[in-house]
Amino acid sequence: MAPTKGYAPVDAMELPRFSGLRTFMRLPHVTRLDDVDFAIVGVPFDTGATFRVGARFGPEAIRSSSVTLRPYNAALEIAIFEVSSGVDFGDLPVVPGYLPESHSRITEAAKPIVASPATPIFLGGDHSVSLPLLRAAHATRGPLALIHFDAHSDLWKGYYGGKDTHGTPFRRAVEEGLLDLEHSIQIGLRGPVYDAGDASISAELGFEVLTGPELHRQGVPSTIEQIRARVGDRPAYLTFDIDFVDPAYAPGTGTPEVAGFTGTESIELVRGLVGLDIRAYDVVEVMPAYDPAAITSLLAANLVYEFISLDAIARRKR
Amino acid sequence: MAPTKGYAPVDAMELPRFSGLRTFMRLPHVTRLDDVDFAIVGVPFDTGATFRVGARFGPEAIRSSSVTLRPYNAALEIAIFEVSSGVDFGDLPVVPGYLPESHSRITEAAKPIVASPATPIFLGGDHSVSLPLLRAAHATRGPLALIHFDAHSDLWKGYYGGKDTHGTPFRRAVEEGLLDLEHSIQIGLRGPVYDAGDASISAELGFEVLTGPELHRQGVPSTIEQIRARVGDRPAYLTFDIDFVDPAYAPGTGTPEVAGFTGTESIELVRGLVGLDIRAYDVVEVMPAYDPAAITSLLAANLVYEFISLDAIARRKR
Amino acid sequence: MAPTKGYAPVDAMELPRFSGLRTFMRLPHVTRLDDVDFAIVGVPFDTGATFRVGARFGPEAIRSSSVTLRPYNAALEIAIFEVSSGVDFGDLPVVPGYLPESHSRITEAAKPIVASPATPIFLGGDHSVSLPLLRAAHATRGPLALIHFDAHSDLWKGYYGGKDTHGTPFRRAVEEGLLDLEHSIQIGLRGPVYDAGDASISAELGFEVLTGPELHRQGVPSTIEQIRARVGDRPAYLTFDIDFVDPAYAPGTGTPEVAGFTGTESIELVRGLVGLDIRAYDVVEVMPAYDPAAITSLLAANLVYEFISLDAIARRKR
Amino acid sequence: MAPTKGYAPVDAMELPRFSGLRTFMRLPHVTRLDDVDFAIVGVPFDTGATFRVGARFGPEAIRSSSVTLRPYNAALEIAIFEVSSGVDFGDLPVVPGYLPESHSRITEAAKPIVASPATPIFLGGDHSVSLPLLRAAHATRGPLALIHFDAHSDLWKGYYGGKDTHGTPFRRAVEEGLLDLEHSIQIGLRGPVYDAGDASISAELGFEVLTGPELHRQGVPSTIEQIRARVGDRPAYLTFDIDFVDPAYAPGTGTPEVAGFTGTESIELVRGLVGLDIRAYDVVEVMPAYDPAAITSLLAANLVYEFISLDAIARRKR
Amino acid sequence: MAPTKGYAPVDAMELPRFSGLRTFMRLPHVTRLDDVDFAIVGVPFDTGATFRVGARFGPEAIRSSSVTLRPYNAALEIAIFEVSSGVDFGDLPVVPGYLPESHSRITEAAKPIVASPATPIFLGGDHSVSLPLLRAAHATRGPLALIHFDAHSDLWKGYYGGKDTHGTPFRRAVEEGLLDLEHSIQIGLRGPVYDAGDASISAELGFEVLTGPELHRQGVPSTIEQIRARVGDRPAYLTFDIDFVDPAYAPGTGTPEVAGFTGTESIELVRGLVGLDIRAYDVVEVMPAYDPAAITSLLAANLVYEFISLDAIARRKR
Amino acid sequence: MAPTKGYAPVDAMELPRFSGLRTFMRLPHVTRLDDVDFAIVGVPFDTGATFRVGARFGPEAIRSSSVTLRPYNAALEIAIFEVSSGVDFGDLPVVPGYLPESHSRITEAAKPIVASPATPIFLGGDHSVSLPLLRAAHATRGPLALIHFDAHSDLWKGYYGGKDTHGTPFRRAVEEGLLDLEHSIQIGLRGPVYDAGDASISAELGFEVLTGPELHRQGVPSTIEQIRARVGDRPAYLTFDIDFVDPAYAPGTGTPEVAGFTGTESIELVRGLVGLDIRAYDVVEVMPAYDPAAITSLLAANLVYEFISLDAIARRKR
Repeated sequence: MAPTKGYAPVDAMELPRFSGLRTFMRLPHVTRLDDVDFAIVGVPFDTGATFRVGARFGPEAIRSSSVTLRPYNAALEIAIFEVSSGVDFGDLPVVPGYLPESHSRITEAAKPIVASPATPIFLGGDHSVSLPLLRAAHATRGPLALIHFDAHSDLWKGYYGGKDTHGTPFRRAVEEGLLDLEHSIQIGLRGPVYDAGDASISAELGFEVLTGPELHRQGVPSTIEQIRARVGDRPAYLTFDIDFVDPAYAPGTGTPEVAGFTGTESIELVRGLVGLDIRAYDVVEVMPAYDPAAITSLLAANLVYEFISLDAIARRKR
Repeated sequence: MAPTKGYAPVDAMELPRFSGLRTFMRLPHVTRLDDVDFAIVGVPFDTGATFRVGARFGPEAIRSSSVTLRPYNAALEIAIFEVSSGVDFGDLPVVPGYLPESHSRITEAAKPIVASPATPIFLGGDHSVSLPLLRAAHATRGPLALIHFDAHSDLWKGYYGGKDTHGTPFRRAVEEGLLDLEHSIQIGLRGPVYDAGDASISAELGFEVLTGPELHRQGVPSTIEQIRARVGDRPAYLTFDIDFVDPAYAPGTGTPEVAGFTGTESIELVRGLVGLDIRAYDVVEVMPAYDPAAITSLLAANLVYEFISLDAIARRKR
Repeated sequence: MAPTKGYAPVDAMELPRFSGLRTFMRLPHVTRLDDVDFAIVGVPFDTGATFRVGARFGPEAIRSSSVTLRPYNAALEIAIFEVSSGVDFGDLPVVPGYLPESHSRITEAAKPIVASPATPIFLGGDHSVSLPLLRAAHATRGPLALIHFDAHSDLWKGYYGGKDTHGTPFRRAVEEGLLDLEHSIQIGLRGPVYDAGDASISAELGFEVLTGPELHRQGVPSTIEQIRARVGDRPAYLTFDIDFVDPAYAPGTGTPEVAGFTGTESIELVRGLVGLDIRAYDVVEVMPAYDPAAITSLLAANLVYEFISLDAIARRKR
Repeated sequence: MAPTKGYAPVDAMELPRFSGLRTFMRLPHVTRLDDVDFAIVGVPFDTGATFRVGARFGPEAIRSSSVTLRPYNAALEIAIFEVSSGVDFGDLPVVPGYLPESHSRITEAAKPIVASPATPIFLGGDHSVSLPLLRAAHATRGPLALIHFDAHSDLWKGYYGGKDTHGTPFRRAVEEGLLDLEHSIQIGLRGPVYDAGDASISAELGFEVLTGPELHRQGVPSTIEQIRARVGDRPAYLTFDIDFVDPAYAPGTGTPEVAGFTGTESIELVRGLVGLDIRAYDVVEVMPAYDPAAITSLLAANLVYEFISLDAIARRKR
Repeated sequence: MAPTKGYAPVDAMELPRFSGLRTFMRLPHVTRLDDVDFAIVGVPFDTGATFRVGARFGPEAIRSSSVTLRPYNAALEIAIFEVSSGVDFGDLPVVPGYLPESHSRITEAAKPIVASPATPIFLGGDHSVSLPLLRAAHATRGPLALIHFDAHSDLWKGYYGGKDTHGTPFRRAVEEGLLDLEHSIQIGLRGPVYDAGDASISAELGFEVLTGPELHRQGVPSTIEQIRARVGDRPAYLTFDIDFVDPAYAPGTGTPEVAGFTGTESIELVRGLVGLDIRAYDVVEVMPAYDPAAITSLLAANLVYEFISLDAIARRKR
Repeated sequence: MAPTKGYAPVDAMELPRFSGLRTFMRLPHVTRLDDVDFAIVGVPFDTGATFRVGARFGPEAIRSSSVTLRPYNAALEIAIFEVSSGVDFGDLPVVPGYLPESHSRITEAAKPIVASPATPIFLGGDHSVSLPLLRAAHATRGPLALIHFDAHSDLWKGYYGGKDTHGTPFRRAVEEGLLDLEHSIQIGLRGPVYDAGDASISAELGFEVLTGPELHRQGVPSTIEQIRARVGDRPAYLTFDIDFVDPAYAPGTGTPEVAGFTGTESIELVRGLVGLDIRAYDVVEVMPAYDPAAITSLLAANLVYEFISLDAIARRKR
């Protein structure tokens, strides 16, 4: 292997990839982030789920599937650990069954991570966790452009009398001014909704929207251009709900929607964002109990790998 | 939710989607169809299956996967229950292990449904059930154009000495004059057959045929045009064998064939039929014992959802 | 089939057991309980779960597995529906992700059921639901003796700073005076606990306790005698956490504990309670996502069947 | 390995047990039975199944699980292939979906096997196949004592208007005089039935009956004595429905019943029959689609192994 | 069925496809290859696997999934058994746990097969088996052009100090001069590698390379042209690692890589090679323990079917 | 929680048990063993497996299932971490596919662990790993009495021409003088073997043997006495092959044998060894790919928990 800058994975020539503790990519488990460029951080919380549950085991599954990832990204031509020092931070504290308190704990625990030199990459957890993570990000960085891959807008006002769930985080984020809406975009929305108003709410709130059918029509290259044009040079937060992907590629999720996107399209879309100024990432809604062949967590691990690669390229340029 | 015309699903804001009895979309279970626009009807019969068996549990699985469907179809811009009153009729009577008697019972039980104001949408069961359903449809409506999505032509003369199976229903339907053959079309045929005659029989019997490889070459939009041109304004019966879909998207079926179609293509093909005069629908060959992540039944439920949407659009226009 | 008193299952000679909607035993779905002797009631709530989650799908799974149950209990020699009229009430309202509010709704919805002539049999849901159900029972019936089958005492003060979870319901019930402690008993406790205090808390709070190892040593007949002696003629509430059973027999649960009991032992223990004055029952913690062969829900359905049988025998005697 | 008499398995020291074609125990596939002592014969028919289906794949699964069986039965102290020459005959012809015709074909194909010097051991298929097999056995051997392990009596008159299914074979066998009823016994019956008449019909028809609860009470050694006393020295047919076994040990079956027997009890019961004059055996209702860890087919393969051992011991004595 | 030339599958009209022993396509099990045109040969060896293991069960799974294949390939318009006589040879001898010895045994056992008139089609096993198979092929035929479908180049020098694994076979083949490198091509390489050198090694060693991203960009028809141009009229060996395919279509493999190819693309690529002079084929890395719906082995069986078809077309032309 | 002596698990009241990295019991990952009382050590090697493979993933699965274990063993009345300081050492180095070299590496890496103050508890891996572990133990401690729970004696001379596999470790250990044979015992042997010699070899080599049928007959308490009498006060090595347990309780293993023991019996047997002088432990042959409900790894984790408890009790006494 090539020389590495700082923290790097266990060498697979020394210890086979099936051995050792399951940190992400078998990176060191480190919680002091002074000399770290990216940190993988689990957020095992799923009390916000309104249908299937179990994304609390998402971080474990993604870490388990990540051990086959190797350090050189040939498609992006980046030797990650020559540029970046990366660690697995472990998990943020949560209180299962208690959303408001968990969200508070997540925000508080995420603030120093966001404020550190490391780019955080969060592993959900249900999509409700993006809200406390955005709050933490906002505390340090102010409003961020949102790059949001998802089958659902997650902009509902609330279920069952106003409560927060995994269907509401970005409504709250808009209300709280956490987002740089003019540069935010939702990509891949599709599937049945409650009424016509649901279908138009994203645009009304100020997001640019690219629905699933539109993405199918225009294809990946145009979509990349559209996202890049929208986000521009603004600091951004990228959130990737695994149900953006078709159930054939990502069965292990809470509210799968048919007519989604392939793994190839998903990976290519992320790669296409090279050069954007993304300050934090999350991938959410991976649910291993519904993922009998573990292809969902494998895809999620690869998306994280592309996030790491984008971040390393950005650092190389600086 | 918007106001509804008649029977409509349980409101998910009142009762979460994982609660309550598993009717399709959590519609009321009603068997009197006077003021009903569409009726979901199970046909849990699989004695016609010649390889894997178990489609008798197809209706249960499709109903279970349907509970996440919401009432507004954003792609087709239709608020279904503002236009349509829909119910789950329950299942037709069958005698497991006895094909001829079951077919008789199915035909007799389906006749009043077909004759009612409601558009029936049948959930198989193996593909043999389309024959008694076509007999019932013919009794009221005369010959119908067949829109047939399938990997197989199901036109064999019979296995093992002339017997009816799930490979023979449309041969019988042709022989009995149940179809408006000049306006009928088979889409997606592929996979190995017994001999060259098998490959040409559809055309010889009078069907227009679009094989799987042809559909892959010409794409979805042209195919939609071809189907629409073939069917024209004739009253039609749409039958969808889930093995039209590729095993990656629909593993839970009896005789899967590789090199099939994606979920997106399947949904788009159905949406493209908007405006045709379809009098009855079925989706068949969903087999939950081979569907470990339940993605097959989820896709089938979504196909039914598109059938409901087509029907509601037709009613809105009247 | 023999003549039946009132509501009874669909006749399997008319409609095969795999057909029709999945109510418990294919009983009528009825919510008016005037002339009903027992009512099956789902409580699909699992926000109290502290490890694996997904018991919200327990009622669906138990109902699905119940369709093979037939009306004559040969072991107890009771033709259930000659004596009892039984229904499936459907599910109680819950708010996923919100324990306090859900518990309130459950209590309110359960009160009229408990106050009706029907004996309620609740299908969980995680074990936290026993608390609001006991509150409802207490409102009508006053303190009840608790017959509690479980691997865990569920008497923790609370996790993570005092919160209610599925590990705390009976602590709360004791504190609120819902139980007739002098006649209450916990059976089957086993597995690692936090400290020595955990192991003695049941007795300190006033329960009689029969640990798992003790039950293994003394056997089923002595245990039945011990329970009967403890409960006597007091009105009782029976709660059965499926993790009482060994993981080989009940893998589909949230916190399985090895060295548990067999299905046979479980069924025999319940049958041995014939003649006790049990006013309400629940079976909880069935989690179908971890039950690949559906044997857990099958066993739970059979336990409910024995509950129904005990109730019918009690009614026959009156 | 020790010298062998005739046909014997592939030597695992030469070819690992995971290699080669999946005949039972990797025995030669031979259909001429002149110099054969036992023959394994598949009967892949399941159209008689009234609930779950798929036992047509039972023979494939049992063969696949049998490859780890080795030639010396230490418990019974018999080196099978020093005494016996054994083969895998392959499968009998069936017509899926057509019970009467399949039963005819099975009977005709089984007759020469039963009449050969080889002891046949049949692998079902659903339990309806025992009827045509008994017809074939009767044609050569006259009435046979039935040793019947099962959760169900399979003595129903017929479902849905008199039809044969897997719940009726022994009623038909009694009616046709195929059984030596005075020496026949049913062991393990349990679970809910339709009415009190169902529970008593076995005895009324002339069988000795040992219910599941009785067997649990009296234990294996007394049960062995009871069976031996009943059968005496009469030529017998042993039929083993895998649902005799508890679902924890045999989940992969069509109508599992809780409170069944362990694998150990099952094996010991069969071993206890050493010395009886058993002329033919079957094991039925193995359904691999519901057997995710393949423990059901493994147990079935081991039961067959014990049948082979009993037969070899009998031959050694002659 | 049409008349057949020699050995041919069991007629599905006589014996249903779920019956009989699991040879490939239910072909006769024959090891003398004098009058045979193609032979299916299992190589159940997986000791070369560096991550997941279990491809030793690949041949069993592919054979099991092959039984639904019918003799006429409609896409290529070839009635296979009118032209070809085909058999299932069984498996080659291996010693699990011992790579060098197993490779020797495989080579020795494969040599007479390669030298026979039959075209061999090998079923792996992990990819290390291609090395001893190429050695056998080379012994008779000299260097062969390699047509290599794979996510990985399998050109590593060795893991853990120079050892052979499934990641090294083609490095060894190059070193030993087994390949006609000027006409060899690797197709589909993708996924993370160790360093930039890994990404360029194929070209440096002399292969033409078409990476996964390149194939996604240029599409199937151009790729077919590129392969045909590279291989020309040279005698070739085609090796197909199932991880060429996307995990959605082929989850059951040892080192799945996201962003792969669909089943349709895979089948079309193989069909596009009609007319090339391919002397031997293998499909490797099918791992049934990770293939819960058996779609991987089904796709592998279909790839073999296309290999057989290519071979039959070549024979028809001669 | 009670005060702890040294290294102890993460507090579940602080961080829920589903969060954090998967070390055993969420103990600290520490490789310096100076002040450690017990160390959990993975040995992810499975190249010795002769049938199913995949035990290399055993340590990951056991660690994942261990997170629900709590620190007080109520059955043995021991607060583990008041007495013991425990860590997860991580995994020993292995070379997949190369048994001799891996065994060497394992021995070398295990030697300092065995020589440390910590009691090692090894997680296999296939059973071949016990051989290099015994070599390491012998280097420091001399011959140890072997307490061997297993369905198989693992005393074969070798497969396929003398090679070491998971069926041979204890033959080698005897040959190399690693064992204190006079005080060694094998418990639970059962299932078919190759010939009569296999059944007697254990006794011939000097082991005391308690076969599976004998253990079933004499029961757990007598067996505990027998083991204690045999081992006496000699320093011992306990090896537990998970296939000692019945497949219903431990399906996830490589060569399951029916008629095994329950989880309860297994746990009670281990508890019964309290007070023996056991210097090292292993649990082997856990194979998660065949363990769909993860009950095998759960049982293995609990066995390890009992080992830890035995060790803590021994330390308390000193």
